[in-house]
Amino acid sequence: MVIAKGNSEKTVFSESEGSLLQALSDWETALPKLEDEYETQSGSELALSDFAAPLPKTWAFLDGSAFIQHIVLVRQARKAALPEDLTTIPLMYQGISDTLEGPTADIPAFGPNDGLDFEGEIGVITDEVPMGTTAEEAEKHIKLVVLLNDVSLRNLIPREVGTGFGFIQSKPASAFAPWAVTPDELGDAWRDSRLHLPLVTDLNGEQFGNPDAGEMHFSFAELIAHAAKTRRLSAGTIIGSGTVANKNPEVGSSCIAERRMLEIIETGEATTPFLKPGDRVQMEVRKDGHSLFGQIDQTVA
Amino acid sequence: MVIAKGNSEKTVFSESEGSLLQALSDWETALPKLEDEYETQSGSELALSDFAAPLPKTWAFLDGSAFIQHIVLVRQARKAALPEDLTTIPLMYQGISDTLEGPTADIPAFGPNDGLDFEGEIGVITDEVPMGTTAEEAEKHIKLVVLLNDVSLRNLIPREVGTGFGFIQSKPASAFAPWAVTPDELGDAWRDSRLHLPLVTDLNGEQFGNPDAGEMHFSFAELIAHAAKTRRLSAGTIIGSGTVANKNPEVGSSCIAERRMLEIIETGEATTPFLKPGDRVQMEVRKDGHSLFGQIDQTVA
Repeated sequence: MVIAKGNSEKTVFSESEGSLLQALSDWETALPKLEDEYETQSGSELALSDFAAPLPKTWAFLDGSAFIQHIVLVRQARKAALPEDLTTIPLMYQGISDTLEGPTADIPAFGPNDGLDFEGEIGVITDEVPMGTTAEEAEKHIKLVVLLNDVSLRNLIPREVGTGFGFIQSKPASAFAPWAVTPDELGDAWRDSRLHLPLVTDLNGEQFGNPDAGEMHFSFAELIAHAAKTRRLSAGTIIGSGTVANKNPEVGSSCIAERRMLEIIETGEATTPFLKPGDRVQMEVRKDGHSLFGQIDQTVA
Repeated sequence: MVIAKGNSEKTVFSESEGSLLQALSDWETALPKLEDEYETQSGSELALSDFAAPLPKTWAFLDGSAFIQHIVLVRQARKAALPEDLTTIPLMYQGISDTLEGPTADIPAFGPNDGLDFEGEIGVITDEVPMGTTAEEAEKHIKLVVLLNDVSLRNLIPREVGTGFGFIQSKPASAFAPWAVTPDELGDAWRDSRLHLPLVTDLNGEQFGNPDAGEMHFSFAELIAHAAKTRRLSAGTIIGSGTVANKNPEVGSSCIAERRMLEIIETGEATTPFLKPGDRVQMEVRKDGHSLFGQIDQTVA
């Protein structure tokens, strides 16, 4: 099933009773009702700008960094050492969860030297996850899959990572594609707790990258287990994959920082600038010609 | 005014309509209604265990570390360098906000070698804070003041701080004293956006420390401005002070890690153990013999 939330007053493919956040706290009861509504509403014709994020606000966004190639390249870019446990313990921070933007929300320009960047990611939304849940048990808590743009201020990151305390100012609000999708809708593309499909990012109408999200080193189940080690996760918790990145450089990137690092490795100089006002970022995941999550289509204000 | 939330079915000094989280989104309207209810209910006789946290769940908990002496001692303890901008930019991480425990909640024992510790802190709860709010403008967004125990797993911190991504597993759920207090209730003890009163912590019935919370290097207004630099803060956001600590070692500490470091400095060896099952932690702030926030009284399970 596909779930979305209408912007403004419209409610679309959406919550028969209460909010999606409430529905996730009793998913087995809520799902059949949502399915009924889906049947009756899925024919609606709507513009992308009619949609909010599927979950416009939630209790926690725990964003992993599960694509090793992204970590290798961005650390190389800021001349930082690789973590010793790079391949054994996932990196994860807690990000903004009270402002989850819709697919066409403008990206604020922020400071001209902040290094404004996009990061294409896959996310999952869980129901209630008890503290101490193992990776083996975690898969069943994945109720929805989403596509998001984790906006990043690249030049503010080194100082904040240097404090050890994580990203407070360098990770502004993320934006979400309109449709949250139950794993069964993804067919054989959802396996091993990963989405095995390319995430296509366009910058100003040209393809910027289409790396396969299946190359995730840690699965979503492993990320959930890491997050839930010493805390429960509330229904509605979003777990992010981190920037989708592949070892093969020919598939391009899901963020500007990686391309700049590849340019430095190849030519000694980064030539692709970070985002500036007027730039347009689009993201999408397609399967059999069909857009699974709908599009993210943001412009820098 | 003093606001609290009853555990179980009881509602105490509390929300006339909807939740405190909702009230904070329209505080000017909600406050008079809450004051009426306060008048009629403040005589109730209740046990500490009848109370939940004033806000049992909220959208964001942004915890600062505004007492320089705490940073100096805990970094010394884990042989970590001091940040270059120690006195100019506040340290802050985003912590668990979907599980805010009541004043008598048991502290889970966690792993025997995790280094279980308490941290006595003052917090403030804001209404909606626009992105880019300055420290000068931030004071008026402080609607309530609270007392909390930020439970910490000291031996898990070095690895997580080393990643740069902040505390996911090393900062389990915090517990709150029962009463959230409007700043006007604090009289002359609330000035310069700081609470100028000692936070008294007892461990197993003996006083562990009573440092003055007024020795905060960064004020709450400055912490709010730091948090809101590139994000809006939702109504109900909690901003923490970090562990209350004074330069004068004679006042003792609000966490075990600091005392252990002082022991090492004095005798070459830390002798105070971290928390173990059965240990009891109590925290309180008194003014003119009156307990301002009520007590935190937790036992390790």
